[in-house]
Amino acid sequence: MRPDAPKISLTDVVFPDRANHYGTLFGGHALHLMGKAAFIAATRHARQHVVMASTDRITFDEPVRVGDLIHEDALSGHRRLAVRGTFEMVAVDANGRPTPISVSQDHNEVQEEAVT
Amino acid sequence: MRPDAPKISLTDVVFPDRANHYGTLFGGHALHLMGKAAFIAATRHARQHVVMASTDRITFDEPVRVGDLIHEDALSGHRRLAVRGTFEMVAVDANGRPTPISVSQDHNEVQEEAVT
Amino acid sequence: MRPDAPKISLTDVVFPDRANHYGTLFGGHALHLMGKAAFIAATRHARQHVVMASTDRITFDEPVRVGDLIHEDALSGHRRLAVRGTFEMVAVDANGRPTPISVSQDHNEVQEEAVT
Amino acid sequence: MRPDAPKISLTDVVFPDRANHYGTLFGGHALHLMGKAAFIAATRHARQHVVMASTDRITFDEPVRVGDLIHEDALSGHRRLAVRGTFEMVAVDANGRPTPISVSQDHNEVQEEAVT
Amino acid sequence: MRPDAPKISLTDVVFPDRANHYGTLFGGHALHLMGKAAFIAATRHARQHVVMASTDRITFDEPVRVGDLIHEDALSGHRRLAVRGTFEMVAVDANGRPTPISVSQDHNEVQEEAVT
Amino acid sequence: MRPDAPKISLTDVVFPDRANHYGTLFGGHALHLMGKAAFIAATRHARQHVVMASTDRITFDEPVRVGDLIHEDALSGHRRLAVRGTFEMVAVDANGRPTPISVSQDHNEVQEEAVT
Repeated sequence: MRPDAPKISLTDVVFPDRANHYGTLFGGHALHLMGKAAFIAATRHARQHVVMASTDRITFDEPVRVGDLIHEDALSGHRRLAVRGTFEMVAVDANGRPTPISVSQDHNEVQEEAVT
Repeated sequence: MRPDAPKISLTDVVFPDRANHYGTLFGGHALHLMGKAAFIAATRHARQHVVMASTDRITFDEPVRVGDLIHEDALSGHRRLAVRGTFEMVAVDANGRPTPISVSQDHNEVQEEAVT
Repeated sequence: MRPDAPKISLTDVVFPDRANHYGTLFGGHALHLMGKAAFIAATRHARQHVVMASTDRITFDEPVRVGDLIHEDALSGHRRLAVRGTFEMVAVDANGRPTPISVSQDHNEVQEEAVT
Repeated sequence: MRPDAPKISLTDVVFPDRANHYGTLFGGHALHLMGKAAFIAATRHARQHVVMASTDRITFDEPVRVGDLIHEDALSGHRRLAVRGTFEMVAVDANGRPTPISVSQDHNEVQEEAVT
Repeated sequence: MRPDAPKISLTDVVFPDRANHYGTLFGGHALHLMGKAAFIAATRHARQHVVMASTDRITFDEPVRVGDLIHEDALSGHRRLAVRGTFEMVAVDANGRPTPISVSQDHNEVQEEAVT
Repeated sequence: MRPDAPKISLTDVVFPDRANHYGTLFGGHALHLMGKAAFIAATRHARQHVVMASTDRITFDEPVRVGDLIHEDALSGHRRLAVRGTFEMVAVDANGRPTPISVSQDHNEVQEEAVT
């Protein structure tokens, strides 16, 4: 992780409207949530309007079930790591075009927390 | 692109409910759409239940504006290429766990088509 | 079908957020998807802003189950035809009012494709 | 209108998440709302599970703007009539298949009420 | 209830996209629906743009199951009362700031109607 | 605030799909977000399935604009406090009925953070 990568912690719950028909979080929704986390972290870091420029490899390690809480941060712990990836966000000018100043959001992670 | 990568063509329109506050498609929604395209292509290819295993580098080359049509396929043309990436999907068994047979969805692309 | 009716092929997957409580695609969502297909086809055909003017009779022939892929086009095949209908779209001017030039989107169809 | 057609009055507000990029209610959303009204009216009438069987001609007479209230009923009045159509709903058995007893929801209407 | 409290009747159906993973309407969605009812009632009463200023105590008396119809009004009857609360809405000026004229929406209620 | 009230910090961004037509967060969405925060906090505290039992007075102090970040926690700071309220959640048994053990989520707050 780059030392200056901004950090953010999002928490959410997987209700059925984000699930596939196997009862687990649809991968596309997981990507959407990670993209939102990257957007918020980069906005706070740059204090400029930002857009997504690229993502590096994102891996899905564990299925996240309906009813689970998900947690996105960089802390290790007893939670299982479900998804991780790196997002590059770039600041944009008034015309929505990228500007040279960019910020990399390393190691966005979705952690899965079962409620038993 | 791997020779056996399944192909699919999705078309959609960017209504305001998918936009950020700059009037362009939010990156998280683009990832969600690409994930759905990969899901459908892999389902058709494998004829098994599939989940997202990983994505390789995804790049956002062009902003997609509200009102634009988007098109996801592997054809080049006069449309501008907006987003591209590679998704690896894996088949899952009845317990939602990955099975060895996997299929790689190379070069998912979102193309942007302005209506003038 | 009118000879000049524009054609479009949309593909989607029925996740639980589009289902009724019987586990099948809610008819209102099917209408929404067909309306989007008609919107995209007419936009491409007219290269103007379009709105929905009317629909002719739409029939639901088969239930579409959660997890099924749906496919909207005019091709017959081994897929079961689930919904079909005709949409009339009209071009609109800068004030959102219809203009005389219109385009009819005949025989929008939703085909259902089971994953076995 | 058939004498036994069940009646229902739904009211809603058009927020931006239901609009196209012209600032008016997207036709597909209007169809979805009318389908929901037909679903509720037929459910109350039949006291059985129902699905959409067909729609007759639906006409869009007026654009509905973002911020407008919409109202679906059969009453005439100073409100402008925006959309109207007829829906046939059928009761379904435990397997989701139609049963002979059906109910026709005549003249679903969306009325538009400007807030000035 | 204040004598001048505007009344409105909304009806909706609980599809799975509004449910938690216990198969009942998620409380947050119930609050959203009640807030929309208050918004519409106050808009009609004041004929001005309105925003939510506060809610008084809201109580959830009964779970609302997926597939149930919900009904929001002030009428007693054989329907079970599921949620009730009071919303204060205020008119806002062109800058989105509250103006002194306000309207109180007393006793918003969600009633639950089982389909048997 | 009760000493044992569980705390949680959610962060989100207000995209146009959550806005009213004045360009600010719709109050119903704010209630939905606060309800989700209360759900997550109570789930973590009780480690049981929980539902919303009641809310005490919720006040909207500041409009939250499209594009703003929102933050829900109990920390004061330079952020403006936008919405605050208290939620009572109760644990439910296997039949979805409340059990005596309850947990109160005091002072859920939505803070608004402008991006300048």
